[in-house]
Amino acid sequence: MNSFGRIFKVNIFGESHGESVGINIDGCPAGLPLKTEDFLEDLERRKGGMQKGTTPRKEDDLPFFKSGLFNSFTTGAPLTILFENNNTRSSDYEKLRAVPRPGHADFVASQKFAGFEDYRGGGHFSGRLTVAVVAAGVIAKKLLSTFYNHGEKESIKVVSTILEVGGEKDVEKGLQKAIEAKDSIGGIVECRVSGLPIGLGEPFFDSVESVLSHAVFAIPAVRGIEFGTGFAAAKMFGLEHNDGIEDGTGRTRTNHAGGIVGGITNGNELVFRIAIKPTSSTPKEQQTFSYASGTVEPFSVKGRHDLCIALRVPVVLEAVTAIVLTDLMMLEQKIGRKAERGG
Amino acid sequence: MNSFGRIFKVNIFGESHGESVGINIDGCPAGLPLKTEDFLEDLERRKGGMQKGTTPRKEDDLPFFKSGLFNSFTTGAPLTILFENNNTRSSDYEKLRAVPRPGHADFVASQKFAGFEDYRGGGHFSGRLTVAVVAAGVIAKKLLSTFYNHGEKESIKVVSTILEVGGEKDVEKGLQKAIEAKDSIGGIVECRVSGLPIGLGEPFFDSVESVLSHAVFAIPAVRGIEFGTGFAAAKMFGLEHNDGIEDGTGRTRTNHAGGIVGGITNGNELVFRIAIKPTSSTPKEQQTFSYASGTVEPFSVKGRHDLCIALRVPVVLEAVTAIVLTDLMMLEQKIGRKAERGG
Amino acid sequence: MNSFGRIFKVNIFGESHGESVGINIDGCPAGLPLKTEDFLEDLERRKGGMQKGTTPRKEDDLPFFKSGLFNSFTTGAPLTILFENNNTRSSDYEKLRAVPRPGHADFVASQKFAGFEDYRGGGHFSGRLTVAVVAAGVIAKKLLSTFYNHGEKESIKVVSTILEVGGEKDVEKGLQKAIEAKDSIGGIVECRVSGLPIGLGEPFFDSVESVLSHAVFAIPAVRGIEFGTGFAAAKMFGLEHNDGIEDGTGRTRTNHAGGIVGGITNGNELVFRIAIKPTSSTPKEQQTFSYASGTVEPFSVKGRHDLCIALRVPVVLEAVTAIVLTDLMMLEQKIGRKAERGG
Amino acid sequence: MNSFGRIFKVNIFGESHGESVGINIDGCPAGLPLKTEDFLEDLERRKGGMQKGTTPRKEDDLPFFKSGLFNSFTTGAPLTILFENNNTRSSDYEKLRAVPRPGHADFVASQKFAGFEDYRGGGHFSGRLTVAVVAAGVIAKKLLSTFYNHGEKESIKVVSTILEVGGEKDVEKGLQKAIEAKDSIGGIVECRVSGLPIGLGEPFFDSVESVLSHAVFAIPAVRGIEFGTGFAAAKMFGLEHNDGIEDGTGRTRTNHAGGIVGGITNGNELVFRIAIKPTSSTPKEQQTFSYASGTVEPFSVKGRHDLCIALRVPVVLEAVTAIVLTDLMMLEQKIGRKAERGG
Repeated sequence: MNSFGRIFKVNIFGESHGESVGINIDGCPAGLPLKTEDFLEDLERRKGGMQKGTTPRKEDDLPFFKSGLFNSFTTGAPLTILFENNNTRSSDYEKLRAVPRPGHADFVASQKFAGFEDYRGGGHFSGRLTVAVVAAGVIAKKLLSTFYNHGEKESIKVVSTILEVGGEKDVEKGLQKAIEAKDSIGGIVECRVSGLPIGLGEPFFDSVESVLSHAVFAIPAVRGIEFGTGFAAAKMFGLEHNDGIEDGTGRTRTNHAGGIVGGITNGNELVFRIAIKPTSSTPKEQQTFSYASGTVEPFSVKGRHDLCIALRVPVVLEAVTAIVLTDLMMLEQKIGRKAERGG
Repeated sequence: MNSFGRIFKVNIFGESHGESVGINIDGCPAGLPLKTEDFLEDLERRKGGMQKGTTPRKEDDLPFFKSGLFNSFTTGAPLTILFENNNTRSSDYEKLRAVPRPGHADFVASQKFAGFEDYRGGGHFSGRLTVAVVAAGVIAKKLLSTFYNHGEKESIKVVSTILEVGGEKDVEKGLQKAIEAKDSIGGIVECRVSGLPIGLGEPFFDSVESVLSHAVFAIPAVRGIEFGTGFAAAKMFGLEHNDGIEDGTGRTRTNHAGGIVGGITNGNELVFRIAIKPTSSTPKEQQTFSYASGTVEPFSVKGRHDLCIALRVPVVLEAVTAIVLTDLMMLEQKIGRKAERGG
Repeated sequence: MNSFGRIFKVNIFGESHGESVGINIDGCPAGLPLKTEDFLEDLERRKGGMQKGTTPRKEDDLPFFKSGLFNSFTTGAPLTILFENNNTRSSDYEKLRAVPRPGHADFVASQKFAGFEDYRGGGHFSGRLTVAVVAAGVIAKKLLSTFYNHGEKESIKVVSTILEVGGEKDVEKGLQKAIEAKDSIGGIVECRVSGLPIGLGEPFFDSVESVLSHAVFAIPAVRGIEFGTGFAAAKMFGLEHNDGIEDGTGRTRTNHAGGIVGGITNGNELVFRIAIKPTSSTPKEQQTFSYASGTVEPFSVKGRHDLCIALRVPVVLEAVTAIVLTDLMMLEQKIGRKAERGG
Repeated sequence: MNSFGRIFKVNIFGESHGESVGINIDGCPAGLPLKTEDFLEDLERRKGGMQKGTTPRKEDDLPFFKSGLFNSFTTGAPLTILFENNNTRSSDYEKLRAVPRPGHADFVASQKFAGFEDYRGGGHFSGRLTVAVVAAGVIAKKLLSTFYNHGEKESIKVVSTILEVGGEKDVEKGLQKAIEAKDSIGGIVECRVSGLPIGLGEPFFDSVESVLSHAVFAIPAVRGIEFGTGFAAAKMFGLEHNDGIEDGTGRTRTNHAGGIVGGITNGNELVFRIAIKPTSSTPKEQQTFSYASGTVEPFSVKGRHDLCIALRVPVVLEAVTAIVLTDLMMLEQKIGRKAERGG
């Protein structure tokens, strides 16, 4: 449901226009140094208002530590982080109550929760919750970088970038298309992880692809995921796709597998891509059903919205990936339950 | 790990050339009629040896019920089904021990399990385990069809088909390409589910896409998954992608969302596609590392193998999908803990 | 770890002298009416300072709803409730850092969390966390009373009482003993639940006794639990212990089983008792190891403490019991995922 | 439900008079040497027919390994062990179908599973399933003894003994009482574990007492559990009950806590006791409801039954305890995912 992970377990909560959104992490190792400043860069990357195509809504987005932190170190007890919601304009949304917005969860949420859902700004379905995911990701990245170093290798690095917007590899150009069309637009985001040990992932049902995709599809607007060569592999011959192993470390000549074989990391770079749909809240007039009239009517979105939500996804994707890998690392006993002092 | 599901919980076990493969289902409702014949059609669909491009290996593949069945009805206690392995030629594989086969789990398994893994025929990583998945799928499909019927609607139907082989929509043509090239080849498989109620799936981490993709990536050789319009959505404008809601039942004009909005089923057809890589065991000579010599050497696969493993995937994909949906239906209390008599 | 439940899932967090303690409930049905006043009675029952033998420490203990509540109804999204800690005197505890208090978790916590634990007032091990348990219990009791009513029967009622203090059934007398001895003292608390349906509990590992005892031993200071006749059953003959079934509703003549047979509720009253040890913080001088001197030294507890912690346990025991039963009821589909309107 | 454990995860299945009973272990480390002979001693201890007061029913009780074992070592893949049922007399039970036996699960099982349960010999509720528990216990004990050795200390030893039968510390005398009374009788069983490291157990809900009692109450006929001084602690003063810490290793002068403080092991001996009710199948005539007549009628048990089931419990209690501790050790990373070669 709203939790993920077997050992490094995150519980997410909150609504777009409610009191707060937040995250509770159960199983975070004791002894990790943590301060507000550690979060600022990634929180900033996630924020809108800084680049063409993202929403001008601003939140201070400062993490409040409500439990699990003592003298600026994690204690091993559950860590709870709150983000207050103080920049919300509910009135923008309340008049829309009578119309389920196309592409949004309004209709299904109302059905699933019998009309009791907090519908303001998408409520619990809002992209606002990704601020909590990013906070958990900061911690996971720190765990990945601090705790692990196998031999000569570099520590684990998780890096996500935008590959395409609206089908254009020149992202600026893709965005310009959307601005000109006065419509929202989708994109493709890639994630690469270096420094992973061999052996992460669990047969049969917890392959690396299984647990990564599970977490990745929690990010709003994701419509597809592919590992390594991905969908292109369906058109390839075996000889072409197979990655020849080069030496006893498992290094392969090519990396069509994207660093995962048999659901297990093979020590090569982990590579995957996700497809992000165009923002559902387009500036264009749409047609949708109205509860009041009982018929399909024209409808326009007001409020502040991103033209291309994909632009804000990379830091969220890094976070989700780091959370998953931290959990796998702890399960495989590559990250300890306690930080090594001075580590 | 080797279990999946929260309420309808399947545990898979076994190895390609060990005693048996099997499945244990904890949480199967009491009172479902079950007999050997119910399994034959799907087990037959999964088997090789019947069509161009699949392996001539044959197993009787008869399910043995070891627990949970009484007077041909499920009892509500754990159901255990075994498939004996009686058509194995281990010698085919044992000489290959010194060489990790490219594209296979040999190398990672050896690292992860410190050389104790059953390496014969891929052992626990073998596609052989999908026979157990198919058996669980038969039960899940029966539960979906027997227990649920919302108003006028049809019962739930899960149907999977091959869309492409080697990039060709004419599957025969794609296969012919592989046969001529004397190489293995990949494909694309689609799954469609009709008759689903609105409201399946759980925020935040158990979206329908999350749990489906989690289970789907347990199927060997899957490299990507996309829902509805999928990767194509990344190139679309918002107005184009949004599915306008037509009436109070939630029916939409188009179905780019593939039946899922906000991670929750919206009552429209569920549609997704997966990419299958070419069979790793290609007839072509490959290059790979040899433990013995310490260098890269030419290497050829012997044994019986499919040219296009995608051909055997549809029934497995249906099974996995039905398992996931049954679990979601039980969680949403749409399928009861007990069969209704006569139901 | 810090979560309990399969469907009605509570996550607890916080420390005695940290920012706050709190609870996050994932899986609470939508549509339950909830307001601050609902919590006051049970929170008051839990508080010290009102009766002989309990600590004079007072907290306002007002619940702050941080997520999951909208227009005074639960939304179906995770419910987060915080209690601020605003009446703490950390200096009382800090000087004790050098001495692990006997009977407390100080020593094991320091070992388990490598010295990073919040040691103030027991930190995450403090009885203070039971305020969050009580809050979750209020919600669970409401669910049990609102949602379920089988035929003519009354709704489910969970009632816990003190049976003994210091071996005395006259509780006042037992307390007086402690006051005279200037020492802390233990007690026995009983819990009875009426109105339960037949069939709660899951073989093999989730018997009603299994899940209840699991949750009950999370309450600090509990040293034993017994169901029905309990330890006395070990001295009985079979004919004496067996409860003869009287009619088709399963009503039994006696109730030595305490309402549970084969791990499953049988429709009779659920009855169990727990043993509470004397408060570890006794006013008496004790002997314990000092890290500083490396030897055993005399040691006296300062600060505010209960002479008999058992006095504050009943409302916590009711809470824990209600949480467990709510989860079992939801698993057995006797409580729905949504409140019935007007229900 | 029928599984237990977070990392070392056991799934139990089977019925008394069905095909088989068995256990599936997911998460057993790779590389543990295992052969049939390892199981014989404990399986023998569990069997009836060898001492006064136990049933003459005999099963060969030989474990069949169906998966997860290769060249006599565990592989890291799920281990499945079957025990065939070949010494059953179903006719003994079938005539009893019309009468729910007092003290047995017959009535509740029929209600919970809508009459579809396998009722023969108690079916899935039968004590027969403990044979599978014992098998898992053998593996857990091996893991505890092989993998862990902290410094000078001995490896972990789990030992369970009968303390009382029918209230008599002289067990023979207690049994004689039952034989003379021609009635069944209860008993008390103790378990002691030495060699445990400090720090096992997880706040808040997974205290050592929580997880042990959870598993222990899965054993049929258990009615109570107490740790250390247990129920007697409820009558004690604080000064009397507190265990003074003697040195930096955490060794205490007394052990009233039974080796657990704050829910965490403190390095001292773990001690707990359980109460076993008299065997429900007493030779005495009883009164119970008859479905056929609709009234209470006299009723006599036929078949083979133990006078004192407590006599067979020690080896099962050891098994359950070892399973729980193995899981806690793996969670705390004290037992690795792989056996050390030669270890």
